[in-house]
Amino acid sequence: MIDQKQCEIDIEKVENTKIHDVDFDKLDFGRKFTDHMFYCDFIDDEWQQPKIVPYQAMTIEPSARVLHYGQAVFEGMKAYKDTDGNAFLFRPEDNHRRINISAARLAIPEFPKDYFMKGLTTLIEMDKDWIKSGDGNSLYIRPFVFAIEPAISAAPAEAYRFMIICSPAKAYYTDKVRVIFAEEYSRSANGGVGFAKAAGNYAAQFYPTRLAQQKGYQQVIWTDANTHEYLEEAGTMNIFFRINDTLVTAPISDRILDGITRKSIIQLAEDNNIPVEVRRVKVSEIKEASRNGSLKEIFGTGTAAVISAISAFEHGNEVFEIPDMENAYADLLKKKLVNIQQNQSVDKYGWRYEIK
Amino acid sequence: MIDQKQCEIDIEKVENTKIHDVDFDKLDFGRKFTDHMFYCDFIDDEWQQPKIVPYQAMTIEPSARVLHYGQAVFEGMKAYKDTDGNAFLFRPEDNHRRINISAARLAIPEFPKDYFMKGLTTLIEMDKDWIKSGDGNSLYIRPFVFAIEPAISAAPAEAYRFMIICSPAKAYYTDKVRVIFAEEYSRSANGGVGFAKAAGNYAAQFYPTRLAQQKGYQQVIWTDANTHEYLEEAGTMNIFFRINDTLVTAPISDRILDGITRKSIIQLAEDNNIPVEVRRVKVSEIKEASRNGSLKEIFGTGTAAVISAISAFEHGNEVFEIPDMENAYADLLKKKLVNIQQNQSVDKYGWRYEIK
Repeated sequence: MIDQKQCEIDIEKVENTKIHDVDFDKLDFGRKFTDHMFYCDFIDDEWQQPKIVPYQAMTIEPSARVLHYGQAVFEGMKAYKDTDGNAFLFRPEDNHRRINISAARLAIPEFPKDYFMKGLTTLIEMDKDWIKSGDGNSLYIRPFVFAIEPAISAAPAEAYRFMIICSPAKAYYTDKVRVIFAEEYSRSANGGVGFAKAAGNYAAQFYPTRLAQQKGYQQVIWTDANTHEYLEEAGTMNIFFRINDTLVTAPISDRILDGITRKSIIQLAEDNNIPVEVRRVKVSEIKEASRNGSLKEIFGTGTAAVISAISAFEHGNEVFEIPDMENAYADLLKKKLVNIQQNQSVDKYGWRYEIK
Repeated sequence: MIDQKQCEIDIEKVENTKIHDVDFDKLDFGRKFTDHMFYCDFIDDEWQQPKIVPYQAMTIEPSARVLHYGQAVFEGMKAYKDTDGNAFLFRPEDNHRRINISAARLAIPEFPKDYFMKGLTTLIEMDKDWIKSGDGNSLYIRPFVFAIEPAISAAPAEAYRFMIICSPAKAYYTDKVRVIFAEEYSRSANGGVGFAKAAGNYAAQFYPTRLAQQKGYQQVIWTDANTHEYLEEAGTMNIFFRINDTLVTAPISDRILDGITRKSIIQLAEDNNIPVEVRRVKVSEIKEASRNGSLKEIFGTGTAAVISAISAFEHGNEVFEIPDMENAYADLLKKKLVNIQQNQSVDKYGWRYEIK
């Protein structure tokens, strides 16, 4: 499928792996990186020779536009290993499609699919030893692209760097999380960049999230900026509500990320006879459902977290606890999804992508 | 005023200036930088030794949070030189105050005032030869701060770099600009970061601005994200409308930058007996005023552009031309402001700040 002539990668391997310096039982998320990294620069209106080199610091001009104007987008993906040592990605073409959707909104040139897929698979093949099998283990993969042109006029850059770096990971959230429903701060505007994995969307959430954390919550569930009456997403996760036996989640929009885990969970739920309603979700509806006992679960979905069960939410200075339940959808659907990802069940969807 | 002991700057001077390589008559905005740059890192919960070194590229980790999450804010300022060779800043303490307001919203630690003022004035004194006197000439000064911590979890960084770089500049917009009033895309949400000079606010405007440019306009005047009925700001400029003899401009809010040029222009207008109304401005009102002839001027204000007269706007696929007028407020107020900035008139406001 890949035109070899169009995307041969220049490869420089490390002399010595640093894998033995890493304690895989004690991994903070996103702080250790594998031996190699992929990069490709956009200069003179085209993507240049792609390269894989030892993971290392790079030079950047102080005037690089990314540092001033946040012209950068990224993706999050994971590779898994089965018990036989085979490595798999999950729906990688969807990540490629989405990084280009994000890029277009930020006036960043699209990255060719063959460069993306070959860079990704070659890099992961080279650093395959960094993927550990077993529950919750994965290799977190971070494709990203940012403006490197040294010019500080407020305009799209003419030079970019596309990179892929990889970080070994355990489960992202280990415990159930407690969240606040946003009442004052917002994540995104109609007609804005909320649907894109734009760098600036994330920094904008840090301060309100810190305020939530100071009150004992881990995350904010963002509501619509206009009325704060509708629940949208959690910034790093899409959000599902189980009301009685039905799953409810907000539709994607220009404010809400089209999550790959989200759409996989919707598919898996439907195929397991769980009714799913994709519709706007009112804060007042969820509070009422919690009061009358029909709210059975809330969980978030995302690449980093896969599925994170939520045990409580706060809104209007009132705390709503969500009792543990047996046979939770979160557990069932997470197991079904992880089994596909880790080659422990049949994948009738064609989501699993073997690295070989 | 500055406690010397608290912010001695380590200084390394260039061996040879590169000023002779620069054609000051042909300057693209923001592409040439002076001989030196100021920087100061935040590590271990405190700002470290501030330094001035030769302007140069720097190293950054691929995992530096700014590249992934856009955790960065900036300021724009200018230095001017009078005909006697004295150099001046304009309201620099206001830029310091604002960069810390922006920083707080992005969960970035505030930068101390004495570090800011001493770094700024020492750097400009060293690179004073780069400031040219004469109409439209200035030294554009870019303080900025960004997250350097090498960790890709979506959380505020624990390490930052604050920098000041300087670029010689001529007038930013030379001709009158034509603008589109936004009808689909948005710049900022209620409860968002629109009031801050957050890096990501700017990249988010690039694509809609490019669409406008493809239609023959230079800028977008952003409207409120909810209804698109109210005119807010232009992304790099605040906006004023002259209706008959009154100036009208939108109030600052969490979506609109508290422009230093904006507030200076309001003050100058009021002190020159020009009535100013700070209130929400409806798109329909401006269209109607254009039709009935009461709309006399539109202009933008900002550090880079100072004042940019706007000669036309498009809305609803209709183009509204604004005829040239004699004794335009834009010309009068720009002259009054520039005269203060360049030490050509008495500054009763205390806005001018001499570098010595």
